[in-house]
Amino acid sequence: MSVDVSSALGVFDSGVGGLTVVRALRELLPNESIIYLGDTARVPYGSKSPDTIRRFATEDTQFLLNRQVKAVVVACNTATAHALPDLQRSFRVPIIGVVEPGVEATLEASDCERVGIIGTAGTIRSCAYQHAIAMRRPDVRVEAIATPLLVPFIEEGWLDHPALKSVLREYLKPMLAKGIDTLVLGCTHYPLLVPMLKRLLGGKVRLVDSASTCAAHTKRCLEEHCLLRTSRTKPTLEIHLTDYSEQFENLAHRFLGADFGKIKKAQL
Amino acid sequence: MSVDVSSALGVFDSGVGGLTVVRALRELLPNESIIYLGDTARVPYGSKSPDTIRRFATEDTQFLLNRQVKAVVVACNTATAHALPDLQRSFRVPIIGVVEPGVEATLEASDCERVGIIGTAGTIRSCAYQHAIAMRRPDVRVEAIATPLLVPFIEEGWLDHPALKSVLREYLKPMLAKGIDTLVLGCTHYPLLVPMLKRLLGGKVRLVDSASTCAAHTKRCLEEHCLLRTSRTKPTLEIHLTDYSEQFENLAHRFLGADFGKIKKAQL
Repeated sequence: MSVDVSSALGVFDSGVGGLTVVRALRELLPNESIIYLGDTARVPYGSKSPDTIRRFATEDTQFLLNRQVKAVVVACNTATAHALPDLQRSFRVPIIGVVEPGVEATLEASDCERVGIIGTAGTIRSCAYQHAIAMRRPDVRVEAIATPLLVPFIEEGWLDHPALKSVLREYLKPMLAKGIDTLVLGCTHYPLLVPMLKRLLGGKVRLVDSASTCAAHTKRCLEEHCLLRTSRTKPTLEIHLTDYSEQFENLAHRFLGADFGKIKKAQL
Repeated sequence: MSVDVSSALGVFDSGVGGLTVVRALRELLPNESIIYLGDTARVPYGSKSPDTIRRFATEDTQFLLNRQVKAVVVACNTATAHALPDLQRSFRVPIIGVVEPGVEATLEASDCERVGIIGTAGTIRSCAYQHAIAMRRPDVRVEAIATPLLVPFIEEGWLDHPALKSVLREYLKPMLAKGIDTLVLGCTHYPLLVPMLKRLLGGKVRLVDSASTCAAHTKRCLEEHCLLRTSRTKPTLEIHLTDYSEQFENLAHRFLGADFGKIKKAQL
């Protein structure tokens, strides 16, 4: 299969949270065009079963490949956790997930001994992070907990509310009691929690966010496959959503932190 | 079209919250068989657009009619608010929603003057409750607010957590300041909030729950259409979900408050 380096990079997520990855990609790879698919008609994936998540992720990838993307970034931890090996077997372009880059960044710090992981029920139940860490550093102790209330708080925009602080305290209590030194934000929504988490944890716990680590990994992958775009024309950003509402548009602005053109309605 | 009174009653919801309606139906109509469809692969509907909600609701109704149900209960406030008139035009069996019964029960109390309504973003934005009340009692003042964080708390099972209390206080503050005498729980998940709401509101605010009022309305509707089941054989309950996971099964038990047989996986 011949791949055109001027083709866009495909990125998908269950909803608009994956736009935090697009934001990081645009900072790191400002010359790349991006086609983003958010499966907002079926969001969230995090509470659903592995079979269903794999079916959705396959349809999302096929949608992007129909638009001739040169590589696919799975900007969703739940879809990465359950579907990445399947996608990599089924499709022939490079397919990049968010879990491995997060784990690499986590283990970069040589003094990392106890790692906490938060994510959706699907991500945590898959043990994808736990497994990837154990394969590299079996000595590292891992505490993982599903935190399904965090996405709703982020989508409601209550990022500074005492109830969010109370929820975070409750979720993090057991891992803080065990003395974690690193906390992996295993969901592409969570970068928006960083200010509140920093206030809550002080400087004691290092935060690893899967959006920026995934962007760095994508850059390396495009370099290795000689897929970096060389054209000097302005790169484009296309956003497709399977359901459109004003709420999704507002959220998209918040996650992307930038303007974008008209959202296209996708049918899967 | 000839309808067999021994046929089951069809009930659908975006997920498993509608089982609170099934629970109320089984108490009030213990001789009826029920086929329930929960669209757990695409849950929630409350944050999605009217077009998408109508498409999903039509597919849900068709699924039940393919199983020869004699009437359909839309046990989801969002689907009722956006799709009920469409469904009633498109299909020929009686189709019963949750909004009208809730409004009737609300206005039964002659001293009802200021009504608060809580529900998903989709339900509140549709103005279905606001409109139905204004048509009957234009003098009644209505305060409606979308409360998207409540379903996640209920599904997490944190029904007694201080963070839930803080969230409810924040949501209800503006309507309590305006002196509501009645609060409509405009989402079939919300009956599980009744103990916390009673503690928070004391005896000052009457609670109207859409599950039990919908069951009473369904009973009247079956009577009027001479559709009550007369057979003395044991009625059945079939539960179909478009996505199955243990989490949904646990939630289903909590919402139904009773045992049920094996869940069937539905494909829409």
